[in-house]
Amino acid sequence: MDYEGILAQIAQEIAAQTDRGTPADYIPQLACVDPAHFGMAVALADGRVFTTGEADTRFSIQSVSKVFTLSLALGRFGDRLWSRVGREPSGLPFNSILQLEHEQGIPRNPFINAGALVVTDAILAGHAPREVLGELLRFIRACAEDEDIHIDDAVARSETRHGDRNLALAHFMAAHGNLHHVPALTCGTYFHQCAIEMTPRQLAMAGRFLVGASGFPSQISTGSVRRINALMLTCGHYDGSGDFAYRVGLPGKSGVGGGILVIAPGRASIAVWSPGLNAQGNSALGTLAVERFAQKTGWSVFG
Amino acid sequence: MDYEGILAQIAQEIAAQTDRGTPADYIPQLACVDPAHFGMAVALADGRVFTTGEADTRFSIQSVSKVFTLSLALGRFGDRLWSRVGREPSGLPFNSILQLEHEQGIPRNPFINAGALVVTDAILAGHAPREVLGELLRFIRACAEDEDIHIDDAVARSETRHGDRNLALAHFMAAHGNLHHVPALTCGTYFHQCAIEMTPRQLAMAGRFLVGASGFPSQISTGSVRRINALMLTCGHYDGSGDFAYRVGLPGKSGVGGGILVIAPGRASIAVWSPGLNAQGNSALGTLAVERFAQKTGWSVFG
Amino acid sequence: MDYEGILAQIAQEIAAQTDRGTPADYIPQLACVDPAHFGMAVALADGRVFTTGEADTRFSIQSVSKVFTLSLALGRFGDRLWSRVGREPSGLPFNSILQLEHEQGIPRNPFINAGALVVTDAILAGHAPREVLGELLRFIRACAEDEDIHIDDAVARSETRHGDRNLALAHFMAAHGNLHHVPALTCGTYFHQCAIEMTPRQLAMAGRFLVGASGFPSQISTGSVRRINALMLTCGHYDGSGDFAYRVGLPGKSGVGGGILVIAPGRASIAVWSPGLNAQGNSALGTLAVERFAQKTGWSVFG
Amino acid sequence: MDYEGILAQIAQEIAAQTDRGTPADYIPQLACVDPAHFGMAVALADGRVFTTGEADTRFSIQSVSKVFTLSLALGRFGDRLWSRVGREPSGLPFNSILQLEHEQGIPRNPFINAGALVVTDAILAGHAPREVLGELLRFIRACAEDEDIHIDDAVARSETRHGDRNLALAHFMAAHGNLHHVPALTCGTYFHQCAIEMTPRQLAMAGRFLVGASGFPSQISTGSVRRINALMLTCGHYDGSGDFAYRVGLPGKSGVGGGILVIAPGRASIAVWSPGLNAQGNSALGTLAVERFAQKTGWSVFG
Repeated sequence: MDYEGILAQIAQEIAAQTDRGTPADYIPQLACVDPAHFGMAVALADGRVFTTGEADTRFSIQSVSKVFTLSLALGRFGDRLWSRVGREPSGLPFNSILQLEHEQGIPRNPFINAGALVVTDAILAGHAPREVLGELLRFIRACAEDEDIHIDDAVARSETRHGDRNLALAHFMAAHGNLHHVPALTCGTYFHQCAIEMTPRQLAMAGRFLVGASGFPSQISTGSVRRINALMLTCGHYDGSGDFAYRVGLPGKSGVGGGILVIAPGRASIAVWSPGLNAQGNSALGTLAVERFAQKTGWSVFG
Repeated sequence: MDYEGILAQIAQEIAAQTDRGTPADYIPQLACVDPAHFGMAVALADGRVFTTGEADTRFSIQSVSKVFTLSLALGRFGDRLWSRVGREPSGLPFNSILQLEHEQGIPRNPFINAGALVVTDAILAGHAPREVLGELLRFIRACAEDEDIHIDDAVARSETRHGDRNLALAHFMAAHGNLHHVPALTCGTYFHQCAIEMTPRQLAMAGRFLVGASGFPSQISTGSVRRINALMLTCGHYDGSGDFAYRVGLPGKSGVGGGILVIAPGRASIAVWSPGLNAQGNSALGTLAVERFAQKTGWSVFG
Repeated sequence: MDYEGILAQIAQEIAAQTDRGTPADYIPQLACVDPAHFGMAVALADGRVFTTGEADTRFSIQSVSKVFTLSLALGRFGDRLWSRVGREPSGLPFNSILQLEHEQGIPRNPFINAGALVVTDAILAGHAPREVLGELLRFIRACAEDEDIHIDDAVARSETRHGDRNLALAHFMAAHGNLHHVPALTCGTYFHQCAIEMTPRQLAMAGRFLVGASGFPSQISTGSVRRINALMLTCGHYDGSGDFAYRVGLPGKSGVGGGILVIAPGRASIAVWSPGLNAQGNSALGTLAVERFAQKTGWSVFG
Repeated sequence: MDYEGILAQIAQEIAAQTDRGTPADYIPQLACVDPAHFGMAVALADGRVFTTGEADTRFSIQSVSKVFTLSLALGRFGDRLWSRVGREPSGLPFNSILQLEHEQGIPRNPFINAGALVVTDAILAGHAPREVLGELLRFIRACAEDEDIHIDDAVARSETRHGDRNLALAHFMAAHGNLHHVPALTCGTYFHQCAIEMTPRQLAMAGRFLVGASGFPSQISTGSVRRINALMLTCGHYDGSGDFAYRVGLPGKSGVGGGILVIAPGRASIAVWSPGLNAQGNSALGTLAVERFAQKTGWSVFG
């Protein structure tokens, strides 16, 4: 397949779009990012990597980090993790507190904010935040085979200053006994994990551990690969997950920094970055780019 | 692969289960079905069919019928259908009315009851109920290559007598202008579609049109196949859809009669029947049986 | 007190208002009413009656009728009625279906639509709709000492044609076993009760049975008077009840026809009519008029 | 009226009750209070005071303190306060976070926890917590004409240690810009205000400023008296407010310490204390005691 040509066509189509969505505005560091940015990278199971646009520009991966912390937590706790967090789509926005009240402080899934806080809280057990963040970076660097992946401290500090909504979620879960550390500590760790910076190329490389191709080494078992992909497909785009599955047909996880990690099982790991978001908080043109890529390659998990 | 052996092992494991769930109790015709029933059939892309248990006993397909009406509606209206119904998981029980109020009478997806009523209402446009039901039966019979598929009138009448919850949903949507026929007419058609009886073998045969295998003739386009499978995966088991995707890893649609249709894209159509339901209204042992089948075959859309 | 002067001042202030709210628009018969109408009447415990504006023009009392059906139901069933309907403010719009789902088909109070349907359903026990409506009219006429009070059939028919939302509520309660008649029958009776026409003078006269003044004959016990006034104060203006209590300080019940019945315990029954509604579905200028009346007379139940 | 005899009868009836409700269990200091306690005091407009039971035993007034902080806030800000908090019954439990999400961080009324936090946050403007608490104690002591009213520091510290639910509410409102101080500071002040200890006699004396009787000096205007009584009647018992209005017919405010302050406008201020709570978090036997008192005296604002 002419991956280079496909990516070039997509880049051209994306460049022509006038409605580019709106960058996240809750912290200045994200709000001031130019929505004109676009980068995409595809890491194939055969080792080749194709890119287009700003594939080597760093962006804030934000909630894409939840895929990596979930992998660590599943590796450490296995199915015991599910006593503290569900695995159902929530049908609600990413930062909603409604369901928590109905369901006794148990978040619906590990990819909404409340659920991701529980996952981070779990891997903090017995460790200092610094250790957990170190382990997370080592895991991501190993997956990406790239040591040059870091946390943007200015973003982390800004998240902390504007962290009231996540602190509300954390205190609420603490009130239900579903947080094992002080809310400020769990949230602080979470804000730093979200502030990891990566390039599209690095993210595509890092995502290979979820492709499940025989050629790839994976840090986790085949069963875990499948389960994480299942969660990405049903819950990876908040209350836009059904739409993403319908249009793209591949598991993916988005972040409010405008990044999306998409897995084509057995074939490739794909990363895209476009900072403008749609109404559900997912990258508007990033979604379009991977939809086009799936159409042009014919890739879909659904037939 | 030794499909026969796999199915025999599964049948044995299912027979040994003491907690079999509870049959649906809202109409006598379903409530009195013995939870000991179990049947399963697998229709492979190469034409072979394997079965175990009561593969030739008829059961009420109930909401599995929504897959077939959705196929007809997508064929007739294409993406215009999505102006009247969403395609997101609802995070709520199958018969909930909550989301309708928040979202102006637009149901979340075509597989919850409200959404299925809209789909039926759509295909009623310009047709009498009798015609629509005739078209639906012809479609299912053609897919299954079996003329001996019928509506159980006693079930249809009983659904009508106990149809207040669905009538509430229909009137509510009518109040929002999202029902184009009198609620009693749309509901009446819907109750009859749910009362279609099939055997596991017939249902597995009928489901082949969603496998997307080159050997299979399909009544719908590859794009439609993928989209319906995507909807089955994200929404096919109500507020248990995430759990089904996590455990089974294949698209499926359940009915309160205890049937589940599962698609292994490119490989097979699988039907299972066990009348006892779990808390989310999906067949408890039917889910276990297809989970085991996916484990033993290694089939998964997720890697 | 110079009631005549007070009412004249109020009429002048109301006439000068340019923002008059919006008449109910769900049926043509209410939508086409001119928002310039205004009438008010005060029936004092000493027998005197004062009026201003169109005190002898008929309007559709709509939900004000719920006070009279509740009185009949309490008279017939006493506290047994509360097994089928609560007596708490709902915090939700008048026609919301949300709480019904959370609370198993038991409406929050008898003044939201769902609760009023249950009250009407209760007094239908053993009676034909015609008989119940006859009894209701006889009760209102006796209270008002005026035989010239009737149902507007055109309004009743129009409510029936646009009755989907109430039918949804009724079917929903039927599904929970909290409706003892066919939804169409209970709703039909309810639509006719809401279509009763009265003038402000007639309504003020009819409301005297809730004043609890020794000079007034009352068709119901002192205990029932107090309880109905309590319900009017906490629940009589839907999700605007708290605001009405805060601003006016007297129990009242509004209708979407723009009428409000207000009780000053021990002193007077007050009726006001202005068709334009506020966001909560209560008469905008009617509320202002009774707020001014309470200020000028110094009447309040709160000190 | 034989107030002494009435109170003696009530004390006897309360003593005979076997189902006494359950003391609040979220902090040890409240959980360990013996539910057998009972005390009641009535301060009449003519200056006489009648008591029964443990009228001179201190208890934690908890949410009854919200009446006093609201009085201070209304005195300082007047109707400007209502831009930050509503005045409608919520229809939800005292500590619910649901409505906050729907309504952009504006609490429904000043008597649910979220609303009380906003009121405390308002009176903190320009003042240190110590100053605000000092002003509050001076106000209460002046109302009660009793200097011996203090904060129980052990209770305040314990509330702080178990304050996650209120911190969640505070952070949530901060995220919506409706908290002007750091959540920990506003919550800390709030926890101390709730930890004020009073005896039934002191509370009845302090409540006289809301009676609106000419004989009583009041620290606030007649208009404010009426408005606070209106809010107590519609919102003073959380999602049991409608029931309290129906059964008792007088404005009241409860606290989870088992105290209730009840106002009979123009007549008396009544305080009751019984630590066991009902399902809505209001004193079970305290409610019964004031219901009996209203029946025996014939007092009601409703006729």
